[in-house]
Amino acid sequence: MSSDSPSPSVSPSSQAAEVQVRLPDGSLKTQPADATAMDVAKEISEGLARSVVAAEVDGTIVDSFRPLGEMADEENVVPLRLLTTRDESALDVLRHSAAHVMARAIMRIYKGVSLAFGPTTSGGFYYDFDMPEKISEDDFPKIEAEIKKIIKAKEPFERFVLDRDEARKLCDDLDQDLKVEHIETGLGDQATVSFYRQGEFVDLCRGPHIPHAGMIKAIKLLSVAGAYWKGDASGRQLQRVYGTAFFDKKELNSYLEQLEEAKRRDHRVLGKQHGLFAINPEVGQGLCLWLPKGARVRVTLEDFLRRELLSRGYDPVYSPHIGRVEMYETSGHFPYYRDSQFAPLFGSEVGGLLDAWSTRLDKDDLSKDDEDKLVAAAEVFGVKLPEYKPSASNDAKKDVLHRWQLNHERYLLKPMNCPHHCQIFAAQPRSYRQLPLRLFEFGTVYRHEQTGELNGMMRVRGLTQDDAHIFCTADQVEEEFRATIELTKFVLESVGLDDYRVQLSLRDPDSSKYVGSEENWDHAEGALRGVLEHSGLSFNEEPGEAAFYGPKADFMVRDCIGRSWQLGTVQLDYNLPDRFKLEYKGNDNATHRPVMIHRAPFGSLERFTGMLIEHFAGAFPMWLSPEQIRVLPLSDKSVEYATAVAKQFDEAGFKVTVDASDGKVQAKIRNAQIDLVNYMAVVGPKEAESGQVALRDRIEGDLGSMPIKEAIARLQKEVETRQVRQAVKGSTVSIAESGGAATDY
Amino acid sequence: MSSDSPSPSVSPSSQAAEVQVRLPDGSLKTQPADATAMDVAKEISEGLARSVVAAEVDGTIVDSFRPLGEMADEENVVPLRLLTTRDESALDVLRHSAAHVMARAIMRIYKGVSLAFGPTTSGGFYYDFDMPEKISEDDFPKIEAEIKKIIKAKEPFERFVLDRDEARKLCDDLDQDLKVEHIETGLGDQATVSFYRQGEFVDLCRGPHIPHAGMIKAIKLLSVAGAYWKGDASGRQLQRVYGTAFFDKKELNSYLEQLEEAKRRDHRVLGKQHGLFAINPEVGQGLCLWLPKGARVRVTLEDFLRRELLSRGYDPVYSPHIGRVEMYETSGHFPYYRDSQFAPLFGSEVGGLLDAWSTRLDKDDLSKDDEDKLVAAAEVFGVKLPEYKPSASNDAKKDVLHRWQLNHERYLLKPMNCPHHCQIFAAQPRSYRQLPLRLFEFGTVYRHEQTGELNGMMRVRGLTQDDAHIFCTADQVEEEFRATIELTKFVLESVGLDDYRVQLSLRDPDSSKYVGSEENWDHAEGALRGVLEHSGLSFNEEPGEAAFYGPKADFMVRDCIGRSWQLGTVQLDYNLPDRFKLEYKGNDNATHRPVMIHRAPFGSLERFTGMLIEHFAGAFPMWLSPEQIRVLPLSDKSVEYATAVAKQFDEAGFKVTVDASDGKVQAKIRNAQIDLVNYMAVVGPKEAESGQVALRDRIEGDLGSMPIKEAIARLQKEVETRQVRQAVKGSTVSIAESGGAATDY
Repeated sequence: MSSDSPSPSVSPSSQAAEVQVRLPDGSLKTQPADATAMDVAKEISEGLARSVVAAEVDGTIVDSFRPLGEMADEENVVPLRLLTTRDESALDVLRHSAAHVMARAIMRIYKGVSLAFGPTTSGGFYYDFDMPEKISEDDFPKIEAEIKKIIKAKEPFERFVLDRDEARKLCDDLDQDLKVEHIETGLGDQATVSFYRQGEFVDLCRGPHIPHAGMIKAIKLLSVAGAYWKGDASGRQLQRVYGTAFFDKKELNSYLEQLEEAKRRDHRVLGKQHGLFAINPEVGQGLCLWLPKGARVRVTLEDFLRRELLSRGYDPVYSPHIGRVEMYETSGHFPYYRDSQFAPLFGSEVGGLLDAWSTRLDKDDLSKDDEDKLVAAAEVFGVKLPEYKPSASNDAKKDVLHRWQLNHERYLLKPMNCPHHCQIFAAQPRSYRQLPLRLFEFGTVYRHEQTGELNGMMRVRGLTQDDAHIFCTADQVEEEFRATIELTKFVLESVGLDDYRVQLSLRDPDSSKYVGSEENWDHAEGALRGVLEHSGLSFNEEPGEAAFYGPKADFMVRDCIGRSWQLGTVQLDYNLPDRFKLEYKGNDNATHRPVMIHRAPFGSLERFTGMLIEHFAGAFPMWLSPEQIRVLPLSDKSVEYATAVAKQFDEAGFKVTVDASDGKVQAKIRNAQIDLVNYMAVVGPKEAESGQVALRDRIEGDLGSMPIKEAIARLQKEVETRQVRQAVKGSTVSIAESGGAATDY
Repeated sequence: MSSDSPSPSVSPSSQAAEVQVRLPDGSLKTQPADATAMDVAKEISEGLARSVVAAEVDGTIVDSFRPLGEMADEENVVPLRLLTTRDESALDVLRHSAAHVMARAIMRIYKGVSLAFGPTTSGGFYYDFDMPEKISEDDFPKIEAEIKKIIKAKEPFERFVLDRDEARKLCDDLDQDLKVEHIETGLGDQATVSFYRQGEFVDLCRGPHIPHAGMIKAIKLLSVAGAYWKGDASGRQLQRVYGTAFFDKKELNSYLEQLEEAKRRDHRVLGKQHGLFAINPEVGQGLCLWLPKGARVRVTLEDFLRRELLSRGYDPVYSPHIGRVEMYETSGHFPYYRDSQFAPLFGSEVGGLLDAWSTRLDKDDLSKDDEDKLVAAAEVFGVKLPEYKPSASNDAKKDVLHRWQLNHERYLLKPMNCPHHCQIFAAQPRSYRQLPLRLFEFGTVYRHEQTGELNGMMRVRGLTQDDAHIFCTADQVEEEFRATIELTKFVLESVGLDDYRVQLSLRDPDSSKYVGSEENWDHAEGALRGVLEHSGLSFNEEPGEAAFYGPKADFMVRDCIGRSWQLGTVQLDYNLPDRFKLEYKGNDNATHRPVMIHRAPFGSLERFTGMLIEHFAGAFPMWLSPEQIRVLPLSDKSVEYATAVAKQFDEAGFKVTVDASDGKVQAKIRNAQIDLVNYMAVVGPKEAESGQVALRDRIEGDLGSMPIKEAIARLQKEVETRQVRQAVKGSTVSIAESGGAATDY
């Protein structure tokens, strides 16, 4: 969540004594060059000034206490917007300052604290410390007490800039060795760095910060966990303390309630409790076993989407779960994403050795002596490499190893379906008449996520994408995008997710990193924007957020407890068709390159199902439910009739079971409620005689007796209309999705 | 197809001058000990003697010219059956003799021929030669001419037995170095070996053979291919000449026609022609890409079977395509089947090196010097193994390497779904109330078949099994087996495969290699036999053919050109539940071990679909067809109506397309016929006006005009009843499935 957002575009030469401040309403105010945004606010009103958190200059958030002269443009103008506590992005500034305050409190209590980084997260902030003593949650009250003291003192945040040598020296004096290391190795060619001081606490930090600690009206430490310095598992182990902060106590309480609610809905707990899925370290971490009930939900989802896709002109395909490494070299997925992939499978027993060897050459991390050892080891396995010249360049040597590997097949567990779908496009001659060609597959891909990142079904190592690739002409992009947006909308609303907006990621007009012609980009971005404008969907544009190979749109979906999920991605791609040299014959008889669109409304079946479990707190709506009806015989005597009733429900397409256990019907009802069965059909001698069932709704309770046919018709309607009645709406706290804007270097 | 069937149970002590021959009707005949089966035949009639091919003594096929005294049992009785040209198993004897005759002819024509092995196959025979000259199909006429000469001479086959030293010397004298090598290294502790002589041709051979070459009434050489000595790709390369032989010219011609027909139906050719599947070496050999049309067939098959399974009380599950190596060690699939598996994926860059190293220790193939090199190479990558003592045993050393690997996850691309399903069983506490638990999955597994063995979709490296595992009590085995047989029957008949018999593989009562109690086996075998007897299915028992872990039944299905396919396996398993320590709580409150049943009616989607392509010659029946209806507008003017018609068909659930091309309707019909579309709906202004279509059946031609609704109803009925009209029946030649009984050592 920590971001490397650029510093405000400072024009250091602007040494004029006065600047022109342009406010959002267009009005200009002349101010001394050393005046601050806070000064401007105070001029307007003291009330406003009290609620000012920071300022926005030309789109970048900055301290309210920075001299405006530092930020003037070439015409000596400062386009200024004041950020108050009511601004969404102000919360991030507050939380970043809260992280400083927490670090300060901890340094007051503990000795020998080395500061690492302290960014904001979607729900709060954390700070990483290297320190001899171990912090536990039991220590939180005393840390929070210290924090309160700091807040009460209302000391201001101050900013100052040093050149790198001075900065190094300052951190050295402060015994902050991690900061020293970062200044020495982590800042590229940056000449100066900023620091923030608050009382005795000084921290290397990009900012921005709130004017003074007193603005933190509500703060709470949440948890403590282990972390690694710069995420490197072989590096120093740190303690990470998580917390959150708000401008208002009510909001904090509401957030804490939401956390509690989220905990109650934890899909890992519900998944185990209701037999939905299991993760077994004997199979492998991050690898889901879909248990029967979870698998029934997935079958329903897949079936639903497959029907939709077939009726919308998609073609099914199936592709293997491995592919030759060379294909991923063609696509660019290897070795570029190597760190997040499973290691290749080698056709030869020494393939792994050669690969590890090649990686060392890559990193230029192989002494002559070590190299000799590898040559000798390879020879043990009969691999002689006469063309391998120790004096040659690393590239030449890697080439020798590579050529050997080429003759000894290497496969990659597929991290993406796209290369396979490109090969399917290329498997037959293609004409413009076949376009758009929409290939879909429930394709399971494998990615080697870090162990610490794994989280139930949400973050896994094997995930099944509801993947499709649309190959079309540039002229068809608009219509395909429109249809995809329409499909995604339909799919999300079918599962009751109707609170979303679209984020449109566009290219950075100042960058040259993009592939594909300027013309194509202009055309595509225009088309995408046009479609969204006409769709009536709420959307926002994010320039610079597009991938280098094309613009994309994401559905940001809010669940019933207010958390935001990125689902339903639509991604244009000008790159892969080029890399795979895909072609079709146009109606001009010439060959053309198609445009490719990646899209996945669910994203992955694992994450989507995990999200649904939490959204519905495990109680799936009727059409998705793994156990829609349970027939409850009043006693032994009614088991026969219960079985006959179940058979009728089964034949009508319902997922139905019979509770033929010995207990009383009250106990059976209780169990069915606990198991989140949607409907109970209670049957006794009376029902058997009249051919009826006493229907009971899990949500509304007793619905009275009715003929089986009537019950079937009623429940079929609920399934067919995909009615969603269960999700609890109403949480108003906005969390997640706000990226951390202001962070440390 | 070459088999290691045991020699007849010779009791070498029977030195009596006379033996009692017991004929199949129970009658006894006294014969001199040196009399032969042929002598017995001649006593009955000369006509019978002319048709005698070999004899069967106590179930084993032997030469008709072997002295009966060699084969008498302890009571000096020879249970004898004469095999004539009408016996199914006689064909195998003939073909094996034909292989000798072919080898003899080749040795007459070419110099320096080293004989390897010459077994029979399901359709004929081959012989492998190491020789300087290259044989091509152009040489077949001259070889066949030489064969005819040999046949015409009607020389008898003669058998003689040598001890191993003598045998080695004879082969050495004959310059047969491969035979020498086989005698030296390939015969275990066997003391004597048999040879067969026919004129100047002498061959080390187990037999049996026909009385004389004149019995070969029809012989044909078919093809020539490369092969390896004993299948070892690093060994000597041989030339393999294939041929076939029959007792009758008509049968040969019929077989050759069948071969032609099979060629015409080759799924690799049809698969490409109709865009069903593709195999691309850039993705990987043996890895299918299912193109849209093939994928539609697969979707239909999966959908059909999934519905059936759900309605028959199966539970869906999904499992990942990899699992930790340790799990496959538990199941026994690793390292036992290692040679046919893809190499493991290693979590550490040197995992592969340690694995290769461990394999060397396994084979006891690592010198002290080489070992030092591997230790040094591992250290290059920072792997220090202080516990690795060069003086320790290989097992102790492997243990050190293994312990290191345990801490650095290793995965296997799954070769089987069963271990995952066992883990799903074990993921929740199980009670007898949940049994039988039937877990199904379309599970894709990966096996590293030899490159030379790969064949389109039939023999692949990635295959999707319609796999299920039933966990049940011993008492439930019978009912589950019955239901599985019923399901398989239903599934096969649904795709029009109604010519099959069941092969029941039982244990060898004399062997002790089986796991599971005697009682369980008796119970299970009895139950299986009982179910088959009551099923009315034709079946045969094969004692000794059961796997060590349980009896099984296979459906041997004959396709429309007479070829036999092993489909629909049902396999009992007493082994895996034990290895995974699976348990359920019985109604006695004690824990019990379930029995496991593996079953797959299709076998694999790949092979099954490949087989269907050939069975239907690419023309799928309506319900499986990837393009059921094509609407053909008479001209441009009718395209709009055609599109509206297609929409109605589409909404009724049909796979429909529109041919909106410029051509004439005759050309459109021709193209639809070529593309094997089941129905064409021709539409012009007349049809548009009356809301009709002129329906055309690919098989029966014009069906006349009718309202769209009527057409829909008619075709829906064909789909719903899964009518199969296309397969061409009638080939009478029986090929395949007859294993090679008589082969070389």
